[in-house]
This record gives sequence, structure tokens and C-alpha cells, in this order.
Amino acid sequence: MPDKADIGLIGLAVMGQNLVLNMADHGYTVAVHNRTGSVTDAFLRGSAAGASVVGAGSVEELVGLLARPRRVMLMVQAGKAVDAVLGALVPLLDEGDIVIDGGNSHYDDTARRERELAEHGVHFLGTGVSGGEEGARTGPSIMPGGPHVAWEAVKDVLQAISAKVDGEPCCEWMGEDGAGHFVKMVHNGIEYGDMQLIAEAYHLMDVCLGLDAKAMHDTFARWNEGVLDSYLIEITRDILGTYDDEGNLVLDSILDRAGQKGTGRWTVVGALEQGQPVTLMTEAVFARSLSALKDERERAARVLPGPSQRPQLDAQSVLADLEAALYASKIVSYAQGYMLLRSMAAERGWSTDPGVTARIWRGGCIIRSRFLKDITAAYEAEPELENLMQVPFFAAALAAADGAWRRVVAAAIAAGIPTPAMSSALAFYDGYRSARLPANLIQAQRDYFGAHTYERVDKPRGEHFHTDWIGSGGGVTSRTYEA
Amino acid sequence: MPDKADIGLIGLAVMGQNLVLNMADHGYTVAVHNRTGSVTDAFLRGSAAGASVVGAGSVEELVGLLARPRRVMLMVQAGKAVDAVLGALVPLLDEGDIVIDGGNSHYDDTARRERELAEHGVHFLGTGVSGGEEGARTGPSIMPGGPHVAWEAVKDVLQAISAKVDGEPCCEWMGEDGAGHFVKMVHNGIEYGDMQLIAEAYHLMDVCLGLDAKAMHDTFARWNEGVLDSYLIEITRDILGTYDDEGNLVLDSILDRAGQKGTGRWTVVGALEQGQPVTLMTEAVFARSLSALKDERERAARVLPGPSQRPQLDAQSVLADLEAALYASKIVSYAQGYMLLRSMAAERGWSTDPGVTARIWRGGCIIRSRFLKDITAAYEAEPELENLMQVPFFAAALAAADGAWRRVVAAAIAAGIPTPAMSSALAFYDGYRSARLPANLIQAQRDYFGAHTYERVDKPRGEHFHTDWIGSGGGVTSRTYEA
Repeated sequence: MPDKADIGLIGLAVMGQNLVLNMADHGYTVAVHNRTGSVTDAFLRGSAAGASVVGAGSVEELVGLLARPRRVMLMVQAGKAVDAVLGALVPLLDEGDIVIDGGNSHYDDTARRERELAEHGVHFLGTGVSGGEEGARTGPSIMPGGPHVAWEAVKDVLQAISAKVDGEPCCEWMGEDGAGHFVKMVHNGIEYGDMQLIAEAYHLMDVCLGLDAKAMHDTFARWNEGVLDSYLIEITRDILGTYDDEGNLVLDSILDRAGQKGTGRWTVVGALEQGQPVTLMTEAVFARSLSALKDERERAARVLPGPSQRPQLDAQSVLADLEAALYASKIVSYAQGYMLLRSMAAERGWSTDPGVTARIWRGGCIIRSRFLKDITAAYEAEPELENLMQVPFFAAALAAADGAWRRVVAAAIAAGIPTPAMSSALAFYDGYRSARLPANLIQAQRDYFGAHTYERVDKPRGEHFHTDWIGSGGGVTSRTYEA
Repeated sequence: MPDKADIGLIGLAVMGQNLVLNMADHGYTVAVHNRTGSVTDAFLRGSAAGASVVGAGSVEELVGLLARPRRVMLMVQAGKAVDAVLGALVPLLDEGDIVIDGGNSHYDDTARRERELAEHGVHFLGTGVSGGEEGARTGPSIMPGGPHVAWEAVKDVLQAISAKVDGEPCCEWMGEDGAGHFVKMVHNGIEYGDMQLIAEAYHLMDVCLGLDAKAMHDTFARWNEGVLDSYLIEITRDILGTYDDEGNLVLDSILDRAGQKGTGRWTVVGALEQGQPVTLMTEAVFARSLSALKDERERAARVLPGPSQRPQLDAQSVLADLEAALYASKIVSYAQGYMLLRSMAAERGWSTDPGVTARIWRGGCIIRSRFLKDITAAYEAEPELENLMQVPFFAAALAAADGAWRRVVAAAIAAGIPTPAMSSALAFYDGYRSARLPANLIQAQRDYFGAHTYERVDKPRGEHFHTDWIGSGGGVTSRTYEA
């Protein structure tokens, strides 16, 4: 082993351990520290035995083991734990040293920490890491944000351990301060949407079409060869083929209450703050909340019967429609995600390149898919693209799916099966392609009860008008609002 | 005039002025102050001339004019302005004096201010006031929250100036600290939903059924005699009957970009924090955001044609269905709003009585309606009600509307007209009445890629299981997760 370690890592939960082993596989010597020392010892004696990994009993010892400029990655729980570790670590570092936060921190916390560490001359890279335990071990998608100079100094390690697609590493600089964690958060929001869409398809197949697990497994296997080819479709296929020792489908025994850890909610809050309508992810987040009300749903089911009869459906034609409906909904979901990314990057002045985010999501992460190659291509062809749905490739895909998508949602509605994500994607699509929406009525109402004023179709933007609606019924005139 | 004023009011924008005149009408002497003194002077010489209103050139002077315990109402802009006024005002007050914040403050700010003022022995009542300018003048709905003892000390004035329905004042105590502003915020979120639902109905009538303004006006007039009877339906009727001097419908000239001031967004953020799926209001908030992208929508309309043909619809039968669809969607929206209220009140320990909130919304405010009498009755019959949709009255109404509601949303989907709020209400209804949702698949996926574990349908809640899915395809067993 060399005199000094190439990089340090603090926090040896599963993700941290797997990243360390991944780094060691790529020839790096890694110094590791964990608050509970027995975890470090067990790791060194266990899966890290024989690897180029050095244990440190304290943060001081860890810092002493590192080559300069020091590079320290944190894999501790987002929130107070990160600030606590930084409080102990930063005073021991020198100007030019680099701290990488690989947890799911909030982008505003990351931006704050970057400012705070910069006062000490220490660089901070808020870095999204996706791919779960397995990805961490074999190659995750990595989204670093922060000073570009710091990125240059850690690029070798992070790109080495990342997933590769077509020979390209799934790790690139995402932009300044909070950009890396923001991109990771949007990734997670998209993941919520993809999972909900698949769950709705499964629900329709199961309840509406009455398919058995084998038929569903085969359908997802087939879909995984087409436009929906993706990790989440693949694992759904596997889940629909996993049986317990008694030969029962494991899935059937799982309670239908979905958990969530918060990044989906953060994405929606970010979208609200940015005024970007990411309706599909929001429905996915709320669908999990609704699923959590299991006992209440059981009581409600007894008093709310729903449609008196189910439509007769041809399974094969519905399945073909369903693939198209999923694909179209997915286009909407990603288009919404990119609306949010674009808006936030513009507000914060981040150099985030949307095409690069799509490129590094192609491998290693939960949302990896063939589809992301098409998004990458779209942004490479037109970096200033206003919206993915306007690209000829996706516009054509949406047009091709149009009829099938409407048939699927209408069938679900007739059958009383909830498809909140697919429905909301379709409503958004129809709203987005409406040159004229009924928001004129909303503006009229707001002006009626609150004198909020309105703009006119025949006058320049920014000129505000008010009508004295009260006592109306005819003959009321508009006048320019004086306020 | 008496020696001392009964109440003081700071902030003489339109809402403040109208509240003062309303108080004076009810026999109260009101001392008023405005940061810009010329506004006070103009008010005293203008609409307040001859009324029992006294001007104060400074906050000190205002305080000196008030009978004890002093009662001071703030009608200044929510945010920093409230803190600035409190900073000047509170040091001049004595123990037991009461400050009422009648602006649209965030409930967390209100809770903080209540704590801060309590340190000085001063009571703070965060108070929602709804009804717009006209309501403020003639009788708003008023939602005070804070110490009950302070409420008792201002009850006479606030109930006197509030709207009355069946002889009952539309003003009651909403609960502790932030409860008043929280209830007002949920009111606003519901208002967003109601407005969006009406806008969707208008859009369908206009584009899908091709009705002219007269026919739409007549429809809303008729609806206002039935279950939809409400202020917002009434003003929509009026708006559809308001023409300019050239005989053109004013509505047609209004630009379809809806504004928003933030309370809708706050409601959604509150719902996310509480894990309560208020999907309809959220779609309404996002529909406004989408409407704001007017130029982008115009570009999108050119490349996204939508359905190749419109369904042939019978206007009269669709209109009948539409009334039922609106009513059913509205039930869902209010049920969601009350889910949020109930959850937050439980978390914060507020004594908020849901039936009382419905009772005071029956008059004076923007969402006032006949419907709120039924909600009031439901909570009076069963104060601990889990959900409005479970009440026999509303369950029957939903069952009666079921077919019509599905036909309307399906027709909108076939026609390519966005109905995000109606669709999301229907999806929620179908999810809520599903004893089993496909969230078991989401849990399986989360366990697959992140070892998040799951609960089982055949085991007690709180026991967590993990399956080693990888390398599956059959024969994989579940085991209890050790972590």
C-alpha cells in the first residue's frame, strides 16, 4: 500500500461500505472511519479484508492518513449528521481540500454548506449517488455539484467507480452549489413517477384484465425489449416471477402501504416554489400517502361501491394500448422533470446541462433506461430546448400513442381503477398543447371578488384591467385599474 | 364619541378601510393608523367621514387612543411588514392587550408570533378574513386562532362585523396558535379547487359542446338553484352575462394566464408535510402554473395536435352529467381539505372543530355555498368523523353521481380537453375506495433496489420483511430483515 490514502470515506452503512469496495476495486487506497468503531473493524475483517482499505479510529486519524489535497467523502444520514461531521472534520482540513457529501441532502443545505466551507478555503461537493446498494458496489450514477475546480480534483475517482454506458462514465459535473443534489432529487421524483406508472399498469392487468402472475411477468419481460426497456420494468418482471417456498407469489403477501423518505416531497415543494407543474410526480407522492391509509381505505371500500358494472375488455388489445399509455405518460413525466430542472438552474445561475443529466442517468441508477438515450440525443441536438414534448421525436411518439393512451385511461375510469399518474399525465398533455385554457375565467373570478385585475388578449402583457362586475348583467364597461 | 376607541386598526388598504367602516356601522369607535399618513387623511375625509373613526398619526398615538384591554387589528401585508409593525407596537402595549393579525400570514409565522408576544404578556390572534373587499365591508367570514381568553375579549367585535347565516355569525374560534390562519389557508386551497373545477366545466361547455355565452350563463344560473348553489357559481353566471360597450363578452377578452398569491401553494406544502393527499387542490395550483406558460403553450399547440377527431356529444345530457361531475368532484375536494385540517389539528394539538369551520364558511367568504350546510350537519352528527366521503349523505351523493362523473371525464379525455381537477378527484375517489391498491408492487420495488423492507398482509403491522430478489426467478424465500 502507498504511504497515504487516495481518499477518505466517513460513514460505513451499506452504501458507504459498497462505495469503498468499489473504489478499492479501481486501484484506490481508501481510509475509512465510522462513528461506531466496531462497524469499521467488522468491515475491515469482513468484506474489505485484503482490499486497499485502511481503518481510522477517529476523524483526526483519517485526515492524517490522506494524501493532499485531501479528499473526504461523507456517506452519513442527510440532515444534522452531515453538519455534525463537518463540524469535526473541517477544522482539520487545509485550504484546497475537498469534502464530498454523497447523501440525499437537500440542495439548500448543500448550498449553505458550500458557502460555509468556502470560508475555510475548503471545497464542498454536494453529490447525488443513485443505484442503491448494488449500484454503489458495481457502479452508480453520480451527480456532483459545487465548485468546478473541486470537481476536477475528484473526477478521476468518481468517474472510475461510476457506471459506464457505451464507454462513457455515468458521472459528470452537474453545476454549481446545490445543483448535484437538486438533480438527484429530481431523479428521485422521476423515480416516484415511474414506479407509480408501473404500479397502475400492474393494477389494471391484475384487477381489470384478470391476468395471472405468469402473464404479467411475460408482459413486463416483453415490454423490457421495447421502448419501456428500463431497470424498473426489469425488476417488476423479476418481482412477478419470485415465489416463496410454498410456491406463492411473494408480491401477493406484501402489504399495500408504500413508504417514502422525503425526496419525492422535496421535488414537489421545489416545483411549487418554481411554479413548475410537475403533476405526475406529485400524484405519485400522494398515491403513496393514500396507500398508507390502509385501514381507512378498507372502511371506505365498504361504503363506496363505485361503478355498478365493469366494462368488458379484450386483454390483448388493452395490453398493447397500455404499453403506449405508459410510454406517453413517461414522456410527460420526464418533460415535467426537465421543466423543473431548467427553471431552477436558470434561477440559481447553475450551468446544469440537461443533456448531461440524461446521459449520466442512462446507467447505474434506478431510472436507467433506453428512453434516456433519446432524451440525451434530444438535448445534444438542441441544448436550449424549451420542452422535451416539442421535440419532433417525442411529439411523434405522443401522437402515435394518443388514441391508446386515451382508451386506457377511459377504460380505467369506466372500471373504477385509479390511474392518478396516467390520468394526470394525459390532462397535463392536453393542457400543455392548449393554446387557450379556461384560465381567463379564473382571472375574471379573481377580478370579481378581489379586484386582482387581468391582462387582455388584445393588449400588451403587463397592462392590467379591472371590470366593475358587481351589479352586472349587461352594459358594464372595463376600465384600466388604478392601483 | 366616547373618550377611548373600542379597537384600533393599522393598515388602511381597501380591506382595512372596509373592516373599519364595518366596525363603525356596528357601533364601534375605531382608531386607525396607516404608515403613509395621507392615506389616513383621505380615508377620514372620504368614506369614513361622519363615522366613528379617529385617525392616529403614529402607532404611539393609536395606542394612546384605545380603551383597555387594548385591541389592535393589523391589516398589513403578510410577511416582514407584520413583524415590523409588531416591533413598533408591542413595546407600547400592556399585559392582557390583544393584537389581531387579519392578513394572510403563514400559520407557522403566526405560531411563532404568538409565542413571542406571549413573552410580553400580549395576546396574539392570527385571524383569517375571507370575502374580499365586499365581504370586508358587508360581513366577511372570520377565522381567529390563538389563546381562547383573547378570543373571548374580541368576540363581540369580530362576530358583530362578520357575515350571518340563519342568524349565526360566521366567526368562531378556530383553535390555538396558528389554527386560524391554517383554516384560512385550507379555505383558500379549497377555493383554488372550486375555481378550477368551474373553469373546467366552462372549458367543456365552450369548446366541447360549443355553447354560446347566453347558454352558459343560463346553465350556471340553473346550477345556482341546485346542489352547486354557491358564490363562485353565482359570479360565474354574472361573468358570463357581462358585456363591454361594444357588446362583446368581457370574458372573451381576458388573457388565459392565471395569477396566484401563494396560499394555494402553502396548502399543498402543508399537505405534503402532513402526508395528506390533497390532489385536487394541487392540480388546481399547477393548472394556474401551466396557464402562465401562455407563449410556450401556443408553440406546443402547433406541434402536438391531440386526438384526430372529437366525439359527437349531446349537449343536454352532457350538461346534466357535468353538474353531477362537478358536485362529486367538489365532495372529494372538501373531503381532502378536511383530511388535511384533521391531520394538522391532531399534530399540533389544536381544538379545531371541523363542523365549526364549515359553519363559518357558509357565509361571507368566497367558498360560501349551500353545500357547506351539509358538511356542517355531517360534523354536528358525528364530530369524530373520519372522512366526509364515508358519511351516508355524501356516500349516496357520490354513488348517484358515479356514472355521470365517469362519462364526463371520459368525454373530456376523448375530446382532448384537460380536466385535471375532475380527473384527479375521480382517481382519488377510486383509490380511496380501494381496499387494496398496487402499493404492494411499489414496496416490492423499494425492497428490491434499496432493501427498504415491507410489511406482509398475513403478519402484524410493524414487522418488516426483506426478500433477496436478486438472482430470482423462483424459489427465493422471504426472511426477516436484520437492520
